[in-house]
Amino acid sequence: MSRFFSEKYKDLTPYTPGEQPQDMQYVKLNTNESPFPPCEAVIAAAAVSAESLRLYPDPDCKALVNALASVYGVSPAQITVNNGSDETLNFAFMAYCDADHPAIFPDITYGFYSVFAALNGVPYEEVPLKADFSIDLEAIMASRATAFIANPNAPTGIALSLAEIEALLRSNPNRVVVVDEAYVDFGAESAVPLVNKYDNLLVVQTFSKSRSMAGARLGFGIGSAALIKDLNTIKYSTNPYNINRVTAAAGRAALENEAYTRENCRRIMENRAFTVAALEKLGFACTDSKANFIFAVHPKIDGKFLYLELKKRGVLIRHFEKARIADYNRITVGSREQMEIFLAKVKEILEETL
Amino acid sequence: MSRFFSEKYKDLTPYTPGEQPQDMQYVKLNTNESPFPPCEAVIAAAAVSAESLRLYPDPDCKALVNALASVYGVSPAQITVNNGSDETLNFAFMAYCDADHPAIFPDITYGFYSVFAALNGVPYEEVPLKADFSIDLEAIMASRATAFIANPNAPTGIALSLAEIEALLRSNPNRVVVVDEAYVDFGAESAVPLVNKYDNLLVVQTFSKSRSMAGARLGFGIGSAALIKDLNTIKYSTNPYNINRVTAAAGRAALENEAYTRENCRRIMENRAFTVAALEKLGFACTDSKANFIFAVHPKIDGKFLYLELKKRGVLIRHFEKARIADYNRITVGSREQMEIFLAKVKEILEETL
Repeated sequence: MSRFFSEKYKDLTPYTPGEQPQDMQYVKLNTNESPFPPCEAVIAAAAVSAESLRLYPDPDCKALVNALASVYGVSPAQITVNNGSDETLNFAFMAYCDADHPAIFPDITYGFYSVFAALNGVPYEEVPLKADFSIDLEAIMASRATAFIANPNAPTGIALSLAEIEALLRSNPNRVVVVDEAYVDFGAESAVPLVNKYDNLLVVQTFSKSRSMAGARLGFGIGSAALIKDLNTIKYSTNPYNINRVTAAAGRAALENEAYTRENCRRIMENRAFTVAALEKLGFACTDSKANFIFAVHPKIDGKFLYLELKKRGVLIRHFEKARIADYNRITVGSREQMEIFLAKVKEILEETL
Repeated sequence: MSRFFSEKYKDLTPYTPGEQPQDMQYVKLNTNESPFPPCEAVIAAAAVSAESLRLYPDPDCKALVNALASVYGVSPAQITVNNGSDETLNFAFMAYCDADHPAIFPDITYGFYSVFAALNGVPYEEVPLKADFSIDLEAIMASRATAFIANPNAPTGIALSLAEIEALLRSNPNRVVVVDEAYVDFGAESAVPLVNKYDNLLVVQTFSKSRSMAGARLGFGIGSAALIKDLNTIKYSTNPYNINRVTAAAGRAALENEAYTRENCRRIMENRAFTVAALEKLGFACTDSKANFIFAVHPKIDGKFLYLELKKRGVLIRHFEKARIADYNRITVGSREQMEIFLAKVKEILEETL
């Protein structure tokens, strides 16, 4: 830290992303990336757009926003696009939370929410998950704070139903509910159909997972036109050109190939079921994940030990040093081949240890 | 605006970027883009990297940072990379300004500084340019505020010398001086050689202009390792993956082809001299621009009129509705052919009007 750093940020502890080894030697099941490449049209669109890099992008990303509006059945004025859904989430913390408007979210959820709150000087309450790791919806409904709900939740993968989300929206129409649907395409219900009914709903999604574009950084928010106007006021006061030309072009191409995305999601769900069944056979308990990851615990194996042993054997999974979940690991659902390698290594470790 | 929008941002007026017509029918001299494509290696690297879009980028952008360190003769710990230099500038406002640490900058300069100040709730002072449009360095030296100096300044193009920047750094070693060198590669002196001598210096640069990569969104800051650590604390608490894979790869390729960049800068400077001479022949007065744009006024032609007449004729330049400079226009220096079209249209307008 320099002697000039503002007092505001002196105690800021950044978010810790999952390891990103650049040598590619691991079976990488630690950051919820897709095992499938983006569709060929995405790669082609990216390559073509690179030829026009000398020009600024369209700050309004009109073509991309129109394509999203068409896929999600809303108007373009109901969509904001950002440099990854993290940016959308940060803008939501800026727009809908302040010293007088605290935030509320589960104690075990996406680890960035508490960082965004600290960054923006926002007081926040963390509501403990219930014993079964489901979200304590009653406690959140009883609060007046701006709610951030990852649905499915991370790293548990457990999803709320659309009826539960709607109950939360109705519990207090005078506070914003942000539903972070980064993982929604793998079997959960999206709240997008509710955006025209509830002006306090912001849905946040990303191209990182189901559309195999984590490397492109493209997230978006869907809500009422008024909410989107707020978020765009912040965007145009922060970084009007936040989406580069290549990402905008690649995003459009992905939206023109939704069948490819859906088929990949189907395969991930199939591989998830296969892996959960195999893990349960090995004595693991898994949450009912609707995401592209599995959250698993073994009664006889320490979570961190398993993570480290797998790493030694070339398989990266994600372990969180956090109370209540320190015995668990989050395993990204990859290709069938990747899951078979993972399972074989797990078996090896169990045989050597137990 | 929604009924939920935080009081903090209710009066925020976003920055207005130059027009970005997407139909490409104009001779576009309004947003200081390069007339030259990025070098072939950049386009090729972008295309290749698109194949790995399923994976997150390296949040530390190690390869890119190392390449920058090598080109600029500093250590990797002295460099932060961001989603365009606007993001670097915003992070600097966050890190080095707050209610107790106001900002100071010229009244006529990059229009985003006042927006960043407002966004971050930072009080700021705008120091009027002198009558000749040079920066009133004495007034800024007399202040204790965090200084933001575009060098060359925009939209005047006038540059401070390295000795003047050093005098500013020494005037008060206890405040940060941010030198925004977006346009430095077209004939001004960079302050990068001073970063090891002054711990209160942050230099901000971009790939948008001299490297023909406005569409890629890549900016960076160079300073002491301590300053860079501050900015990275904010970066990793805001958007750790702020640089996408394609931009990172394209940026590295550009840095491996510095001769191409230098040759393009030479051609821009040549076209600038050609255009200034021609404009002066037509009765215009031009500032001594060291940037890739010209700032010109004609004693008998209204600035806005000229801008609108040129637009009708298919040539876009930038006009600012701002006191003192409303009679001026900023003309990006493009290719020789573009400048000849621009000059022909200007002649037409002068002949029809005067």
